[in-house]
Amino acid sequence: MSAPAVVTVIHGPNLNLLGTREPDVYGHATLADVDAKLQALGQERGFAVACHQRNGEGAIIDLIHAAGAGIVINPGGYTHTSVAIADALRAFGRPAVEVHLSNIYAREAIRHVSVTGAACQGVIMGLGVNSYVLGLEAVLEMIGSGAERS
Amino acid sequence: MSAPAVVTVIHGPNLNLLGTREPDVYGHATLADVDAKLQALGQERGFAVACHQRNGEGAIIDLIHAAGAGIVINPGGYTHTSVAIADALRAFGRPAVEVHLSNIYAREAIRHVSVTGAACQGVIMGLGVNSYVLGLEAVLEMIGSGAERS
Amino acid sequence: MSAPAVVTVIHGPNLNLLGTREPDVYGHATLADVDAKLQALGQERGFAVACHQRNGEGAIIDLIHAAGAGIVINPGGYTHTSVAIADALRAFGRPAVEVHLSNIYAREAIRHVSVTGAACQGVIMGLGVNSYVLGLEAVLEMIGSGAERS
Amino acid sequence: MSAPAVVTVIHGPNLNLLGTREPDVYGHATLADVDAKLQALGQERGFAVACHQRNGEGAIIDLIHAAGAGIVINPGGYTHTSVAIADALRAFGRPAVEVHLSNIYAREAIRHVSVTGAACQGVIMGLGVNSYVLGLEAVLEMIGSGAERS
Amino acid sequence: MSAPAVVTVIHGPNLNLLGTREPDVYGHATLADVDAKLQALGQERGFAVACHQRNGEGAIIDLIHAAGAGIVINPGGYTHTSVAIADALRAFGRPAVEVHLSNIYAREAIRHVSVTGAACQGVIMGLGVNSYVLGLEAVLEMIGSGAERS
Amino acid sequence: MSAPAVVTVIHGPNLNLLGTREPDVYGHATLADVDAKLQALGQERGFAVACHQRNGEGAIIDLIHAAGAGIVINPGGYTHTSVAIADALRAFGRPAVEVHLSNIYAREAIRHVSVTGAACQGVIMGLGVNSYVLGLEAVLEMIGSGAERS
Amino acid sequence: MSAPAVVTVIHGPNLNLLGTREPDVYGHATLADVDAKLQALGQERGFAVACHQRNGEGAIIDLIHAAGAGIVINPGGYTHTSVAIADALRAFGRPAVEVHLSNIYAREAIRHVSVTGAACQGVIMGLGVNSYVLGLEAVLEMIGSGAERS
Amino acid sequence: MSAPAVVTVIHGPNLNLLGTREPDVYGHATLADVDAKLQALGQERGFAVACHQRNGEGAIIDLIHAAGAGIVINPGGYTHTSVAIADALRAFGRPAVEVHLSNIYAREAIRHVSVTGAACQGVIMGLGVNSYVLGLEAVLEMIGSGAERS
Amino acid sequence: MSAPAVVTVIHGPNLNLLGTREPDVYGHATLADVDAKLQALGQERGFAVACHQRNGEGAIIDLIHAAGAGIVINPGGYTHTSVAIADALRAFGRPAVEVHLSNIYAREAIRHVSVTGAACQGVIMGLGVNSYVLGLEAVLEMIGSGAERS
Amino acid sequence: MSAPAVVTVIHGPNLNLLGTREPDVYGHATLADVDAKLQALGQERGFAVACHQRNGEGAIIDLIHAAGAGIVINPGGYTHTSVAIADALRAFGRPAVEVHLSNIYAREAIRHVSVTGAACQGVIMGLGVNSYVLGLEAVLEMIGSGAERS
Amino acid sequence: MSAPAVVTVIHGPNLNLLGTREPDVYGHATLADVDAKLQALGQERGFAVACHQRNGEGAIIDLIHAAGAGIVINPGGYTHTSVAIADALRAFGRPAVEVHLSNIYAREAIRHVSVTGAACQGVIMGLGVNSYVLGLEAVLEMIGSGAERS
Amino acid sequence: MSAPAVVTVIHGPNLNLLGTREPDVYGHATLADVDAKLQALGQERGFAVACHQRNGEGAIIDLIHAAGAGIVINPGGYTHTSVAIADALRAFGRPAVEVHLSNIYAREAIRHVSVTGAACQGVIMGLGVNSYVLGLEAVLEMIGSGAERS
Repeated sequence: MSAPAVVTVIHGPNLNLLGTREPDVYGHATLADVDAKLQALGQERGFAVACHQRNGEGAIIDLIHAAGAGIVINPGGYTHTSVAIADALRAFGRPAVEVHLSNIYAREAIRHVSVTGAACQGVIMGLGVNSYVLGLEAVLEMIGSGAERS
Repeated sequence: MSAPAVVTVIHGPNLNLLGTREPDVYGHATLADVDAKLQALGQERGFAVACHQRNGEGAIIDLIHAAGAGIVINPGGYTHTSVAIADALRAFGRPAVEVHLSNIYAREAIRHVSVTGAACQGVIMGLGVNSYVLGLEAVLEMIGSGAERS
Repeated sequence: MSAPAVVTVIHGPNLNLLGTREPDVYGHATLADVDAKLQALGQERGFAVACHQRNGEGAIIDLIHAAGAGIVINPGGYTHTSVAIADALRAFGRPAVEVHLSNIYAREAIRHVSVTGAACQGVIMGLGVNSYVLGLEAVLEMIGSGAERS
Repeated sequence: MSAPAVVTVIHGPNLNLLGTREPDVYGHATLADVDAKLQALGQERGFAVACHQRNGEGAIIDLIHAAGAGIVINPGGYTHTSVAIADALRAFGRPAVEVHLSNIYAREAIRHVSVTGAACQGVIMGLGVNSYVLGLEAVLEMIGSGAERS
Repeated sequence: MSAPAVVTVIHGPNLNLLGTREPDVYGHATLADVDAKLQALGQERGFAVACHQRNGEGAIIDLIHAAGAGIVINPGGYTHTSVAIADALRAFGRPAVEVHLSNIYAREAIRHVSVTGAACQGVIMGLGVNSYVLGLEAVLEMIGSGAERS
Repeated sequence: MSAPAVVTVIHGPNLNLLGTREPDVYGHATLADVDAKLQALGQERGFAVACHQRNGEGAIIDLIHAAGAGIVINPGGYTHTSVAIADALRAFGRPAVEVHLSNIYAREAIRHVSVTGAACQGVIMGLGVNSYVLGLEAVLEMIGSGAERS
Repeated sequence: MSAPAVVTVIHGPNLNLLGTREPDVYGHATLADVDAKLQALGQERGFAVACHQRNGEGAIIDLIHAAGAGIVINPGGYTHTSVAIADALRAFGRPAVEVHLSNIYAREAIRHVSVTGAACQGVIMGLGVNSYVLGLEAVLEMIGSGAERS
Repeated sequence: MSAPAVVTVIHGPNLNLLGTREPDVYGHATLADVDAKLQALGQERGFAVACHQRNGEGAIIDLIHAAGAGIVINPGGYTHTSVAIADALRAFGRPAVEVHLSNIYAREAIRHVSVTGAACQGVIMGLGVNSYVLGLEAVLEMIGSGAERS
Repeated sequence: MSAPAVVTVIHGPNLNLLGTREPDVYGHATLADVDAKLQALGQERGFAVACHQRNGEGAIIDLIHAAGAGIVINPGGYTHTSVAIADALRAFGRPAVEVHLSNIYAREAIRHVSVTGAACQGVIMGLGVNSYVLGLEAVLEMIGSGAERS
Repeated sequence: MSAPAVVTVIHGPNLNLLGTREPDVYGHATLADVDAKLQALGQERGFAVACHQRNGEGAIIDLIHAAGAGIVINPGGYTHTSVAIADALRAFGRPAVEVHLSNIYAREAIRHVSVTGAACQGVIMGLGVNSYVLGLEAVLEMIGSGAERS
Repeated sequence: MSAPAVVTVIHGPNLNLLGTREPDVYGHATLADVDAKLQALGQERGFAVACHQRNGEGAIIDLIHAAGAGIVINPGGYTHTSVAIADALRAFGRPAVEVHLSNIYAREAIRHVSVTGAACQGVIMGLGVNSYVLGLEAVLEMIGSGAERS
Repeated sequence: MSAPAVVTVIHGPNLNLLGTREPDVYGHATLADVDAKLQALGQERGFAVACHQRNGEGAIIDLIHAAGAGIVINPGGYTHTSVAIADALRAFGRPAVEVHLSNIYAREAIRHVSVTGAACQGVIMGLGVNSYVLGLEAVLEMIGSGAERS
C-alpha cells in the first residue's frame, strides 16, 4: 500500500497569531483549528496535508521548493511585493492556489495587487477560514485522485 | 412545506459564448453545462439556483436588485470598471461572491483590479468552472441552512 | 393655452433603491418622495417635471436624447466613467445640471472625478434630496420663464 | 428680541475683481452685487449674512474660525491645494457649502479636484452667481430656522 | 443562387444624432446618409450590409454576437473603457475594423486610448464619413470575395 | 496641359527592411511593392505619387517641408515620441494621413500613443499594406480632383 | 549676566483651535497648555522658548526669518505642499525639528509627504503633545548649552 | 509734463534674504542691489520701477491687483503650486514676465513646473540677477514707450 | 519585588555595521554604544531594555511577536516596503515607535514613504542616535510607570 | 588685431519655416530677420554671431560640438525629449542659453518639461524674437568682453 | 606565501533550482556547473571564489557583510524591491557587480528596475551563465592583482 | 582563405568627445583608445571589428542595417527613448549587446530605462571601457568561432 500524495499548506507572516490578531478582520479560529480542518478534509479525500507557518520570505521559498503534489498558500504581507515567492511558485509547476482570509480588494490600495497570485492557478479571498477549505478543494480537484503521485 | 431559498447566479457579458469563445482561456464547457452543475449542487444542499446571463450593465443591476438569498456573479468585462454594479452589490447586503474562470492577476494589467469584487464578501478566480462551484459553496456556507429565508 | 415646458429628471443606476440602500449615506426619502417634491416645485413655477429612473447606460442616453427643455441628472456610478453619457449631454445643448445626494469629493478616490458633470452647466452635490431641489431651481433659472419653449 | 443667526460668506483670492476679470468665464456681476443679493435673501429668511473677501490663505482660515452658524465659501485658487483651509472647515463642524462660479470639471485638469470641498457638506458649481444663491439656500436649509442659534 | 455574405455595421452611442450633434466636430451627414453610402458600396462589391445603431453597451455586444462575415464598428464613448465590448470582438474572430469620425488622438486625453480597437484588426479615424467607407473597404478586402461565406 | 498634383509618401525608420523584418508582424511585401501599388493608384486618379524612405527624424522633417499637395506618412518608431515631426505636420497644413502596417493599440503600451497622428487629419492602422492604400485614398479624397493644385 | 538663547516654537494653521478641534485626532490639551509645558522645559535647561501661532503661510515664513537659535515647527496643512516654508527653513541653517501631533503616515495619502520636513534636521510625529516636548529636547540637544549663542 | 508709467517688480517669499541665503545657489547681491539696478534701468528708459517683497501669497496677489503698466515677478516657492497667483496674473492682462535667479529645470523635480509662469507672457530663469534685468527689458519692450499709460 | 517591564529595541538590516557604514550619513557611534545608552536610560526609569539586531524580515517579525511592553524599532530598508512587518506591528497592539538615524524625507524618493511607520504610534527621524533615545522616551511615556506590566 | 569671439546660434527643427508656420503662435518675422538682428547686436558688442538651422537631432549635436565661446539654442520639438542634445550641452561647458519663441508652460502638457534646458545656464521663453535677443545678451554677459577667447 | 584574495559569489532566491526551473528562460546549466566554471576562472587568475546560494533576504545581507575582496551577486527577485540589500552593498564599498541570466529589460515591467544594481559598480544581464563569467572578470579587473588584499 | 567575420561597434551621440567630456563620469580614455583595444581583442579571436561613431538617430539605424555578424552598441542618450533604434535591433536578429560606460541605474531617473537594451540579447553597464570589452567578448561568445559567417 502506497503513501498518500501530500498537499503542502503554507501560512505566511503573522498567521501564527491567528485568532488573537485583529479578530474583527481575521476571525477567532486559531491556526491549529485551521490546520485540523484542512487535514481532516485531506484525509477524507485520501491525501496527506502538511501545514507550515513561516514569517520569513526565504523560509517560505524553501517550503515551496520542498512542497508535495500541490500547494495552498497564504503569503500574507508578501502577497503584494514578493517577486521571489512568485518565481518559486512559477518554478513549482504543479497546482497551487493562493488564499486570503480577508477580501484584499476591499482593503487599502496597497493590498489590491497580488504579485504572487499571478503565479498560481487560482486565488480565493474574503471567505475567512473557508478560503483555505475551498483552496484545498481546488488543489485536490486539480491533482485528481489522491494516491501516489508526488 | 416551504419553498427552498433561492441563490441567484449572474453571468455577465459574453458568457453566453462559453465553450466557443477562446476555449484555451475559458475552457470547453458551455453555460448550460455550468448551470446544470450549479443547480445539481444547490438541490443537493436544499437550495434553488436561478441562473441568468446578461450582456448589459443595467440588466445585471436589475438582476442584483431582484436576487434571492445570495449571489454568485461573474461580471466579465464590467469587473474592472463598473462602479454602478458595485453599488448594486453593496446595496444587496446579503452574501455575494464574485467568480472568474481565468486568473485575472495573470492577465493584462487592465484586468488586475476588481471594482465589483470589492463589494462582495469574497472573490474566487482562475479555477475554470470550479470557480463557480466553489463560489456557490461559499455562498451556501454563508447563508447557512437552505430553507425559508429569502 | 399652451402646454408647459417639460424638464426631464433622470435618476441613474440603483436610485430605485433610494430610502432602503445604505440610508446612512443616501437618506430615508424614497424616489417617489423625491419626484413628488420636484413635481410640486415645477408646477409652482409653471413647468412640467417628468421623472425617470434607469439602471442601464444606454437607457439613460435614450432619455437624454428625448429630454425636454432642461435636464436634472444623477448618473450614479456612471458619473465617473461614462464618456457616452457625457457625449449625449454635450449633444443635448440645453440647460443640464448634475446632482449627487452625497459629496463625491468626500468619498473614495474613484468617485472624485465627474466625466459627465464636465458636460453639464453645473454640478450640485452632498445636500441629500436638496441637491435635486436646487438642481431643478438652477435649471429653471437657466430656462427662464416656464411656458411654451421646448 | 434676539439677533438673527449669522451666515458667513467667504470670497477667496481674486474675487474682489469680479465683474472685471475674464467676464466671459466669471460673468459681469460685481462682488457688491453678489453680496447684496445674498444679504437680501438672508434677510427674507431671518438671517444676517456677513460677506468677506480675502486674498490670503491665512486670512481665510481666520474667517472660518470666526464664522457664524454656517458658511458659504468660494476658496478660488486655494480650492485645489489647501489642506490648511480644509482642516479649518473640518474643525468648524457646522454647515458649510463650497461654491464656484464656473464648472471646475469643465476647466483644466488642475482644477478638477477640490481638497476643500471634501471638508464641506456640499459643493455647487458652474451656475455663476446662482451658485452662491443656491449655496446660501442649502446652508439655511441645514441650519433650520434662522433665529438665536449661533 | 446563394445569398451574399453580410457585413454588420454597428454605430454606438449618440450616433443616431449624427448630422445634428456638434456638426463642427462630426459633420452634417445623417446616419441614414452614411448607411445608404455603405450599402451602395457593399452592393457594388456583392455583399449585403446590415446597419444598426445602439446606445447601450450590452445591446452592442448582442449585435457583435449576431454579426455576419465581418464588422465595421464605431463604439463611440465606449471605445475608451469597454473591456466587455473588446471581449466580444475578440470572441468574434472574423474581420473587424473600428472607425471614428474624428481623430481621437487630436482630442482630449481620455479619448486617446482605444480599448476596443485593440481587439480589431484595424482602426481608421479622423476622416469623417470616409472613415466608415474605408473601414468597409478594409473589411471586404479581408473577407475576400463576397458570396456565400457566413 | 498641366502636371498632376503630387502626393508625397513618407516611409519612416526601418521600413526599407519591409518584407524581411519580422514578416509575421509586418508582412512579406517589400517597400518597392508598396510604392508601385500606390503609384498605380495615384496614376489612375490623376495624381503623381512620390515615395521616400528615411531613417532619420530630421530627414523626415525635410521631406514634410518639401511635400506636395498631400502626405501619407508612416513615422515608424518616431510615431510615439516625435514632437518635432508633429510640429512639421502641423506646419504643413494640407491633407495628411498617418498609416501603420500593424495595429498599434494591440502592441506594447509604449506604442499606443501617437504624437504625430494628432497632427494629421486621420490615422489608419492594422491593415498591412492596405493601410497605405486606404491612406492614399483618404488623402486624394481630401484634395479633391488631382490636377494643378500644389 | 547674558540673556538665554531663544528657541522659537511655531504653530501653523488651525493649531489655535487645539483642544477643541477634532479632539479624538489631536487630543484635549490647549495651545496654552503646550506652550507652558515647553517654556517650563526650556527654562529648566537655561533657554528661553518663544511660542507663536500663525494661520498664514507668509506669516510663518516671517517667523522663521526672525527665529532664534533653533526652531520647533508644526506647519499643519502647509507641511505637504509649501515649498516656500521649506525654502525659509533651508535658509535658516540652524537646528530645526518638525513636529506633528498625529502620525501623518497613518492618515490619508495627501498627508504622507512632508515637503517642509525635508528642510529640517529631524521630524517627530504621532506622539501628541509629546511630539513637541521631544522636538524641543532634540533642538536643545543640537544647540548644546543654552546661553548666549544667537 | 506727465508722470512716467510704473512697472511693478514683485519679489516673492524669502527673497528678502537675498545675498545671505544659500549664496552658492542665489548669489551675493542683496535685494537692495537688485532693486537699485532695476530702477536705474527703468529711469534710463523713462519708466518708474516700484519694487516690493512679500512672503505671503495673499500679499503678492494684492500687489498684482495694484500693479502698474507691467509686472516683473519672482514668485519663489509659490511658482510651483499657486493657482491663486496665476489667476491674479491672468486677470492683470497687461505685460508680465516671471523671473528666477536659478534654473528651475536643473533643480529638484518639484521645481520643474511653473503654474504661475503659464499665466505670464514669458519666463526667464537661471541667469542670476540678470534674469531680473532681462525680465524688465522684456516688459518694457512689450509696453512700448514709457510715459502716461497706466 | 517584581521584575521590571521590558521594552524591546529592534535594529533592522545593516545596523550591525553602525559606526563603520557611511559614517557621514549614520554617524560614528556603534550599535553597542547605542544599546548601552538606551539600557542606561531604561534602568534610570525602572525598565529593562532588550536590544536585538536582525537582517531578515522574518526574524524581525519574530522579535515583534515576542516583544515586551513596548517597541522601539528601526526597520532600516524594510521601512519602505514591508507590509508583513507593518502587519506584525498592528497585531502587537501595545506602544511602538519607529526611529531613523537619518531624515528619510531628505533622502531619495524611494525612502520618503514609511509602510511600517503607519503601523506605529509615532515616528522619529533625522536626529542620529538621539532618534533612538527620544523614541525610547516616547514609548516609556506611553507605557506609564515601568513595573510589572507585560 | 585678433578675430572676435564667436557665439553660435542654433535653430532646431521647423524653425526654417519661421514667419510662415502658425504665425499666430510664432510671429511673422523670418529666420533671416532674426539672424540679422542677432548679428547686428553681436557686432555692436564686438562678437561674431554664427547662425545655423538644422532639422536633425544628430546635426544639432554636431553644431554644439563645434560651437564657439557660447551658445544660444532653440531646440524646438527636441526640447522635451532629447537626452542626447542635453548631454552635448553638458559636455560643452561654456555659457549656453535655451530660448523659445512661445511660452512652453502655457502650451500642452508635453511641452512643459525641458530636458535640454536643464543642461543650459538659463532658459528664456515666450517673448517671440525678443527671446533670442535677450538670450544672446545673457550669453554675452556671461562671456564678458567679446575678443579672443574661444 | 599568503592566501589568495577571495571573491564572494552570491546566488539569490530560487537559483538553487537552476537547470530545472523554466529552462527556456534560464538555461540548462545547474548551479554547481556555474560555480565550477567561476572557481576555475578565479584559480586561473589567482583568486579564491566562494559561492553561496540563499533564498532569504536577511541571509543575503549576512553574506554581503561577510564578503571578501569583491562580490558577484544575482539578487533574483529581490533585485527590484530590496532597499535593504542595496544598503548592504553600499556599505560594502569594495567592487561589486550584479548579474542576471536573463535580460530584465526584455521581461515584464516589474523587472525593469534594479534597486540593488544601483548600489553596485556595474550590471551585466541577458547572457545566461556568461553573465556570471563576465561579472567575475569585471570584479577581478577592478580588484587588480589577486593576492592579499581583503 | 576566407575573410574574418565582422563585428560592428556603434558609438552613439557625444561619444566622439570621450576622454574630454565629464571625465569624472566617463573616464579619460579616448574613443580611439577604445576602438584600438576592441580591434586588438577581435584580431586575437579571429574577427574583424569595425568601429563607428554617429550623433544622429537615423545614422545609427543605417549602421545597424549594414552591420556584420554581431553588434556592440552604446546608444548614448537614445537608449532611453528610441523606439526606432530598438526596432532596427529587433530586425537585425543576430547577436547584439548594449554597453554603457556608466551605471545607468545609479544616475538620474530618466536614464534607468533602456528601450533599446530590451531589443538586445544582453546589457552591460557601469564598468567604463571594460563594458565595451566584455560586451565584445559576449558577442563573440554568441557568434561562436570567428570565420566566414556574415
